[in-house]
Amino acid sequence: MIRLFVPGKLQDGETIALGPEQSHYLRDVMRRGVGDEVELFNERDGAWRAIVAAVDRRSVSLTPRGRTRAFAPGPDLELIVAPIKRARLESVVEKATELGVRRIRLAVTRFTQGDRVKLERLEAIAIEAAEQTGRLDVPEVMGPEKLGDMLDGWGERRLIFCDEGGDATPMLDALTGGEGTSILIGPEGGFSPEERNRLRALPFVIPVSLGPRILRADTAAMAALVLWQSKLGDWSP
Amino acid sequence: MIRLFVPGKLQDGETIALGPEQSHYLRDVMRRGVGDEVELFNERDGAWRAIVAAVDRRSVSLTPRGRTRAFAPGPDLELIVAPIKRARLESVVEKATELGVRRIRLAVTRFTQGDRVKLERLEAIAIEAAEQTGRLDVPEVMGPEKLGDMLDGWGERRLIFCDEGGDATPMLDALTGGEGTSILIGPEGGFSPEERNRLRALPFVIPVSLGPRILRADTAAMAALVLWQSKLGDWSP
Repeated sequence: MIRLFVPGKLQDGETIALGPEQSHYLRDVMRRGVGDEVELFNERDGAWRAIVAAVDRRSVSLTPRGRTRAFAPGPDLELIVAPIKRARLESVVEKATELGVRRIRLAVTRFTQGDRVKLERLEAIAIEAAEQTGRLDVPEVMGPEKLGDMLDGWGERRLIFCDEGGDATPMLDALTGGEGTSILIGPEGGFSPEERNRLRALPFVIPVSLGPRILRADTAAMAALVLWQSKLGDWSP
Repeated sequence: MIRLFVPGKLQDGETIALGPEQSHYLRDVMRRGVGDEVELFNERDGAWRAIVAAVDRRSVSLTPRGRTRAFAPGPDLELIVAPIKRARLESVVEKATELGVRRIRLAVTRFTQGDRVKLERLEAIAIEAAEQTGRLDVPEVMGPEKLGDMLDGWGERRLIFCDEGGDATPMLDALTGGEGTSILIGPEGGFSPEERNRLRALPFVIPVSLGPRILRADTAAMAALVLWQSKLGDWSP
């Protein structure tokens, strides 16, 4: 079943006109025509069965025909990641969406050396991944912002700090329950000694280890999200 | 520190001549010259400090100067994965190497639709990932082989079957100890009903669930490896 994220209002009697990219995808790539069924969704209105009502060169329009699923928010899990090379950052956004994060924040650290961030491109990847993975919301992609500023304004959330220092507790053992968790992954060069000292001294920070091998930033991000979802999130019964 | 995998014998008094690609990397990309230090390693001889002894247009040669680490085998964990699209399969090989698998076997299933597999290219990716992640062995990449034939000749190992059916136990709860584990990940289209029935009826198969969302094959492979290493492998204390 084709799933498409649409920001517009989904309700009976409404008609949804898709934008050029989604129209092209449905008409030319997937070869859907009048009368075919797809799923439309957004966070506000949930998932809807929808029938292709009209196809022309500029646009495809659809008629919603009954809600199939209401939106239920996932765990309040966010990922904070330093901008890394474009392809790897895009992979992080895709995987984080599949792994159910609510928000992705880009943090500039001392050793950040990533490509210039294109937020729009990352948002498009998050939408595509949400369509593919079956969730009804699309994670927000925010930033970039300086890590120091982020920590200055920190609130009540737990901050899980994936620490390559080696002496941290394995993540699976270190995790403790409670909603409102952020996971922090450094850039390929790791954190500076000053950043690491500051992080380890903050009361809301939980330093964790991700095994004995050096992980690339994208691997570390996925690993930490998998462990959190498995132990405390919506992968556990 | 630059780490290079070399298959040749590492011992004091020996000289190692690098092949054209590693020579190019060391000489032209990393700009190392005579007297500079790198780490050479393989599974048989462990990791060695080595000094650049000569640089010319065709080759770079190095002299080992003392072993820094002996090889200690990691857990007997293998990944069985259907060939998927080239870029995603390459990512699986990279991540599986970082996550410490001993072996990657390619299995052709009913719905396998991947690109043609280039084993040499996958082996090169495994070597590069081993160099980057700090391990001393390089996982073997084998196959492709038909899943049915693989199961016909199955031995004593546990086979963890990542089952999208929805009613399997969450992986973190389903995992039980013991060396000799294989993790099986299907292609993007999943397993056929016949494959799924056969797998679920086999005594050595443990069906597991990876959460409520649909995961791409590469995400599922990484997630399963992370959970196994965290609960039973070398990420646990």
